[in-house]
Amino acid sequence: MLDAFLRHPFMSRDGRAASSAEAFVTAMCRVEIGLSRVQEAAGIFPAGTAQTISQHIRAEAFDLDALAADSADGGNVAIPFVKQAKALLPADLRSHFHRGATSQDIVDTALMLVLQPRLTHCLDLLQHSRQDGLALMTTHENTPMIGRTLMQQAMPITFGAKVAQWLWGLAQAEQRLAGVARNGLYVQFGGPVGVHTGLEEHGPALMDALADELGLARPVLPWHTDRQPILAIGDALGVVAVAAEKIALDVALMAQTEIGEVSEPASTGAGGSSSMPHKRNPVGCARIRAAARQIHATVGLLHNAGAQPMERGLGEWHAEWAPLVDAVLLLEGALETLQLLLEGLDVHPEAMHRNLAVTGGAILATPAIAFLARHLDRDRATALVREATANAVETHRDFAEALLDQPEIAAAVDLSALRAAVDPAAHVGASRAQVARLREALKSL
Amino acid sequence: MLDAFLRHPFMSRDGRAASSAEAFVTAMCRVEIGLSRVQEAAGIFPAGTAQTISQHIRAEAFDLDALAADSADGGNVAIPFVKQAKALLPADLRSHFHRGATSQDIVDTALMLVLQPRLTHCLDLLQHSRQDGLALMTTHENTPMIGRTLMQQAMPITFGAKVAQWLWGLAQAEQRLAGVARNGLYVQFGGPVGVHTGLEEHGPALMDALADELGLARPVLPWHTDRQPILAIGDALGVVAVAAEKIALDVALMAQTEIGEVSEPASTGAGGSSSMPHKRNPVGCARIRAAARQIHATVGLLHNAGAQPMERGLGEWHAEWAPLVDAVLLLEGALETLQLLLEGLDVHPEAMHRNLAVTGGAILATPAIAFLARHLDRDRATALVREATANAVETHRDFAEALLDQPEIAAAVDLSALRAAVDPAAHVGASRAQVARLREALKSL
Amino acid sequence: MLDAFLRHPFMSRDGRAASSAEAFVTAMCRVEIGLSRVQEAAGIFPAGTAQTISQHIRAEAFDLDALAADSADGGNVAIPFVKQAKALLPADLRSHFHRGATSQDIVDTALMLVLQPRLTHCLDLLQHSRQDGLALMTTHENTPMIGRTLMQQAMPITFGAKVAQWLWGLAQAEQRLAGVARNGLYVQFGGPVGVHTGLEEHGPALMDALADELGLARPVLPWHTDRQPILAIGDALGVVAVAAEKIALDVALMAQTEIGEVSEPASTGAGGSSSMPHKRNPVGCARIRAAARQIHATVGLLHNAGAQPMERGLGEWHAEWAPLVDAVLLLEGALETLQLLLEGLDVHPEAMHRNLAVTGGAILATPAIAFLARHLDRDRATALVREATANAVETHRDFAEALLDQPEIAAAVDLSALRAAVDPAAHVGASRAQVARLREALKSL
Amino acid sequence: MLDAFLRHPFMSRDGRAASSAEAFVTAMCRVEIGLSRVQEAAGIFPAGTAQTISQHIRAEAFDLDALAADSADGGNVAIPFVKQAKALLPADLRSHFHRGATSQDIVDTALMLVLQPRLTHCLDLLQHSRQDGLALMTTHENTPMIGRTLMQQAMPITFGAKVAQWLWGLAQAEQRLAGVARNGLYVQFGGPVGVHTGLEEHGPALMDALADELGLARPVLPWHTDRQPILAIGDALGVVAVAAEKIALDVALMAQTEIGEVSEPASTGAGGSSSMPHKRNPVGCARIRAAARQIHATVGLLHNAGAQPMERGLGEWHAEWAPLVDAVLLLEGALETLQLLLEGLDVHPEAMHRNLAVTGGAILATPAIAFLARHLDRDRATALVREATANAVETHRDFAEALLDQPEIAAAVDLSALRAAVDPAAHVGASRAQVARLREALKSL
Repeated sequence: MLDAFLRHPFMSRDGRAASSAEAFVTAMCRVEIGLSRVQEAAGIFPAGTAQTISQHIRAEAFDLDALAADSADGGNVAIPFVKQAKALLPADLRSHFHRGATSQDIVDTALMLVLQPRLTHCLDLLQHSRQDGLALMTTHENTPMIGRTLMQQAMPITFGAKVAQWLWGLAQAEQRLAGVARNGLYVQFGGPVGVHTGLEEHGPALMDALADELGLARPVLPWHTDRQPILAIGDALGVVAVAAEKIALDVALMAQTEIGEVSEPASTGAGGSSSMPHKRNPVGCARIRAAARQIHATVGLLHNAGAQPMERGLGEWHAEWAPLVDAVLLLEGALETLQLLLEGLDVHPEAMHRNLAVTGGAILATPAIAFLARHLDRDRATALVREATANAVETHRDFAEALLDQPEIAAAVDLSALRAAVDPAAHVGASRAQVARLREALKSL
Repeated sequence: MLDAFLRHPFMSRDGRAASSAEAFVTAMCRVEIGLSRVQEAAGIFPAGTAQTISQHIRAEAFDLDALAADSADGGNVAIPFVKQAKALLPADLRSHFHRGATSQDIVDTALMLVLQPRLTHCLDLLQHSRQDGLALMTTHENTPMIGRTLMQQAMPITFGAKVAQWLWGLAQAEQRLAGVARNGLYVQFGGPVGVHTGLEEHGPALMDALADELGLARPVLPWHTDRQPILAIGDALGVVAVAAEKIALDVALMAQTEIGEVSEPASTGAGGSSSMPHKRNPVGCARIRAAARQIHATVGLLHNAGAQPMERGLGEWHAEWAPLVDAVLLLEGALETLQLLLEGLDVHPEAMHRNLAVTGGAILATPAIAFLARHLDRDRATALVREATANAVETHRDFAEALLDQPEIAAAVDLSALRAAVDPAAHVGASRAQVARLREALKSL
Repeated sequence: MLDAFLRHPFMSRDGRAASSAEAFVTAMCRVEIGLSRVQEAAGIFPAGTAQTISQHIRAEAFDLDALAADSADGGNVAIPFVKQAKALLPADLRSHFHRGATSQDIVDTALMLVLQPRLTHCLDLLQHSRQDGLALMTTHENTPMIGRTLMQQAMPITFGAKVAQWLWGLAQAEQRLAGVARNGLYVQFGGPVGVHTGLEEHGPALMDALADELGLARPVLPWHTDRQPILAIGDALGVVAVAAEKIALDVALMAQTEIGEVSEPASTGAGGSSSMPHKRNPVGCARIRAAARQIHATVGLLHNAGAQPMERGLGEWHAEWAPLVDAVLLLEGALETLQLLLEGLDVHPEAMHRNLAVTGGAILATPAIAFLARHLDRDRATALVREATANAVETHRDFAEALLDQPEIAAAVDLSALRAAVDPAAHVGASRAQVARLREALKSL
Repeated sequence: MLDAFLRHPFMSRDGRAASSAEAFVTAMCRVEIGLSRVQEAAGIFPAGTAQTISQHIRAEAFDLDALAADSADGGNVAIPFVKQAKALLPADLRSHFHRGATSQDIVDTALMLVLQPRLTHCLDLLQHSRQDGLALMTTHENTPMIGRTLMQQAMPITFGAKVAQWLWGLAQAEQRLAGVARNGLYVQFGGPVGVHTGLEEHGPALMDALADELGLARPVLPWHTDRQPILAIGDALGVVAVAAEKIALDVALMAQTEIGEVSEPASTGAGGSSSMPHKRNPVGCARIRAAARQIHATVGLLHNAGAQPMERGLGEWHAEWAPLVDAVLLLEGALETLQLLLEGLDVHPEAMHRNLAVTGGAILATPAIAFLARHLDRDRATALVREATANAVETHRDFAEALLDQPEIAAAVDLSALRAAVDPAAHVGASRAQVARLREALKSL
């Protein structure tokens, strides 16, 4: 399929490898074997049943192409899987296999098993990104740059303060994802209509035991048409994607040729169209943004498919599968890129400095007037500042020097005091305090 | 505007009344006055400043039409609000007003203030719904009905077990919403570029104080372009909507004329088209589903708008406002209807009983054969069951009686044992245990 | 990848086979060779260049795994494709290869080439469905059934009239898709920034020639960041999906066990869970609905990604690829199922007849009263009708017979006139006229 | 409601005024009166009936607050509207009122009547924008600027060619909208279950007559649950929004302080935050983008709600109303802003010129080397170009002059030939031809 060219470039390579069709069959085998174990432990099966089942039901024994081909007919892969599995078993064990289970139990639980290590990896990547981001923040704690609102130059900030914003966005999202990854990947086990038909009052205990056996969370009830667990996963993926996308957006904007405050590191693949060697394309940002948009669409899909009829969805359930898995692998891919980006981001403080001067000091007109008004008439101060600004733009000079070029100013004020008053670094507000506050907050996560 | 006819019918009436333009102006006044208080307390303003400001800045003093009309130009209502406010103030206080703040601070914080009581009301409604749902569940703990998968009759459950599913869906969603309502409505205060320009290192402490003053949560950092707080609210609204929508979907399906297992209570507005007096329309379900679909669209919008450039969104921020407020009021309306639905739902156990017989016993063919096979040849048992099923459908008779009509069966088995064996109530699995488990789980919420 | 189990079951098998990675490489080769042909024809290259290029640039010469692996770095597959291609060419031809083109030209155009036969197949399937639907409509032109609003029984219609609705929905959507498939699959050719750099004023003519060469439509301008062509495709997929989904929804509702008015044919895979042999699951409907929901999400994604910055998207473009291709293959799969559904739909007119009697005649109370009021006092007539309705429900009798059971009625009216007056078939409004009108409208498509 | 501050700023003021609750009541009156007219004309009512009805059923006679308040119960406004209307009529006319109609007929048709002038206005605005855009394009047909891909400087284009892209995007979208506005606003008239119950075979002709009477299009069939007409409207709104959003995005990017190639005109409200007088905010772009994002969400909603059950939606229909009307008014507002933007856009060719030099000529390194290689060794040429580029950046000099600063070059080449070779204006490809082609294409629309 075309996915190899069109979707996989935005996904985690490791994630894809670990989420193969084989891996899903392995996961389904784990579910069925786990089920036989807990039923044996509960005395439902004779001792040794689970062991024998596990000897026959091995992923490599399945015909994957047939599984894929037969999935369409019944609408899910568990139907042909159970059929192939039963054929692999000695006749006398067949009635013990898949006992009390339904297709949805197998598919939903196997999905959780496949997603679990991916989410763990996403959390690792987030933690790695946080460390890299903290280092970046610390390095640039005192690097002034212009803050921009509606993409217009507004007032100075520090680059450290911007990174702090990025990190707190990531941290909030990470907490959502961690909550889901640690306590929200539930076993699904409810039987044909979700009430453990045939297992009677033992159902819930077997469900708990199966969860423990598989290392998944115990649900209060089966969730065949209560899709809150799926929504929680999807939403968490979505908000992590937004947090990464925000960074990619800022980086891409800062990397614009005319702005040039950062460049993507070579590690993200940045750079070179052969026809335009001067370009250093923010390809990593493009990949993150491409992944994020696909994840957003999945969040919308999951919410729209969330209310499922009666005791089994009629298409709503089926619509969740591929988009959910894709979303996880796309997020994992985006986070891999993000980590490289934060680790290797090429920061150009001199460009930040240059851009602070682009308006010739207009961004600091207010403090400049305030300073001069202590020595000159306020209206006169305003006029002089306007003039100096224009001169500074025209001559590519520093705002302070442009002010001091005006004899009236040079005569009236202390030179170094004026330089200090219109130094952008003196107007970064609580940037440093915010950086410290963020550092503290991350410690207590 | 047409909203009165086209959107308001799905919203909470109280919610709308409390979310008026006036209410928003009041909220903006609270933010500004709160800000002057904390700045006065911090010694930034002379004592008494806040008191004087609060005397002049009163919602009723504002020209609302002018505010609305002027909102377009600057792109938000805070700009004309601050202008009108300054005109209301004595000249010497103007420089103390809106000090260190930017439009986004006022709009975002005022939004949180307006949404706060609405979310609280949503939580109240959810709690009320839970009580009503628990009563409904308890009443029908032992009411058998058919479980349906892909909307086909499958195996029996109890209506109590179905209600348990509904309640656990609601409870999970409620926990998400409660988390946001209690700790996730943050004050926004960061000044023009989010670093507390002009307030220097005092900014964060003032931000905390303002949060306390307004009864909002303290953020780690301003969140002008870190929209995780907005996403958390939107997602929570979305999942509560799904939980309500699931119930509405099940109720509407069960209320179908041919199924008739429940009817909406008159309290939801159900009933009567004048031209078709036999109808009892599930209007409450329609309203819930209409609201839910609009909320889902908003979740998608918020995620797509989540990554906002640099230090202020360029349309992304503006796109959040109305959909977010609408989503809250739509959810509040849906929860009002849901509560009425759960409180007054008209349940028809006799229809549930009737529907269990619709397949003539085919839903219980497996246990019937198992029972008969103890007394007859298995193939013969299978054939007799098939025959009895057909007869039962044709003659509208009970499955057990149709079986006993066959002399071969009547001669071979104990009558009451057979009746017990094919009693749907004997095949509801762990329905009762699930109900008990849910009841326990809700206690520990 | 897991797609084999989780997404492919909802896709067209032929569609997938024809949309392989190989097929995409073939399409990219066609684009490049086509480009060399039109440039040779324009005298830009020496005669024979294109011929030589086409001998070297053959799909089977490419290392697909390397293409896939290298796609991530530059963010698209065209970059490694061009690199591999140049390595395949004699050194002196390299400068003629990919001349004036950019990666987006190759990817967008190759996509159009891959999608073209798929859309053609979708149109074939739609035409086939229309024929099958027309036959179904004609067969049931006079089959009365109950119309349902808010899923409650309302007034009679014919099944033919319902099918007419389905077909007109499909026909409108088909026209949208046909417009796109026939005139809306444009060649993309604009060079690095969309203005045919290096080709100067010859660019547009070469673009036209390349379109003709490849059998694609000629655009007015390159559409690198004018994504209207993509939106037109996506929207058309979306509305066809809705039209199919509407049919699937109605079929699934009619197929509910208690309603039983239709069953899915075995050809769609309907039927058999092994554990519940009485079930005949509407799996085809589930597949169609699963596909449709995924397509809807893609429509949302494409609109949200529609506005792309400057002369090349920064992730927005990349986000279109896989979802767009998936949407086409999902639609193709859905239409394959739909065609089988319409061709083989198992209609149960006797169930439709039975359901018309479920309310004991209440659905026809108004005409019944009107008829009786000609012979009896109106209030008395109303009371008698209400009584008859109750009796009819209780005794499973026909409404007319229940009315005639009442001596007062039997004495007053003509028996056959009354039977005619409350015959549902007499109250199907313009059902027949609508069927005729639809048939006429389809002729002139 | 808060809409006044939070949604209305992005809407057309005239559009909102014309889409009042009163206007909707007027539209519902028009539908009912029109219906009585065509029924009278068909001989169903006595002559004069429609005239009498029209004298009583006047918008000003309705209690709008009661209509709004009662809309929730039945789930739509037509129910209380018909009730109030009947109370306004002489008793003997009541049975002639709303004859053969259902609530959905009134609501859907009234919506079409309210939307019709809005879409017409949108088309007027689009035409106006096209004229303004054509003027802008013509003025800047020969204004070179840098083309940017992935937001990095790539190769030169002309600003005229960029405007041509904008206009063709708009034109394609306009054609979609025009198709819908002219032939796609259908009357809805089908009665309780869509088959013209009670009107029998006259139904379709009455439907056609009503369409003509109201100036709406004739549908083939009623479209109560065939929502293709709604989808066509929604999609058209969506693609126009994208076309406008693309322009807003480019303008906002070009208006960035460091790039400064355009500024928004004062007419869009651009400019001034009082605290930062140096800013000229692209508020118009923000408004357009805010509107577009909300419209995109509505497109997703309409597609997800497109498949509606049986003969009336159960919430799906209700979910369409407000978002659809909002989308139209938001689009109208966005197009008003867009027109002002295109009419008054402040273009700064000198900034475009300046930005072409930002890389010191690196964007033209390839042609520069090619030129020099005719006179010098190619490797030497490459080295000299690299050096000149660095010097040009450092000294803010022109690339050509930096090249000529190098004696080796100055000695070898013709000065004016070199200046011509590296003149960005000489490297704008087919920009001019594209402009001409676009102009031609627009003529034949």
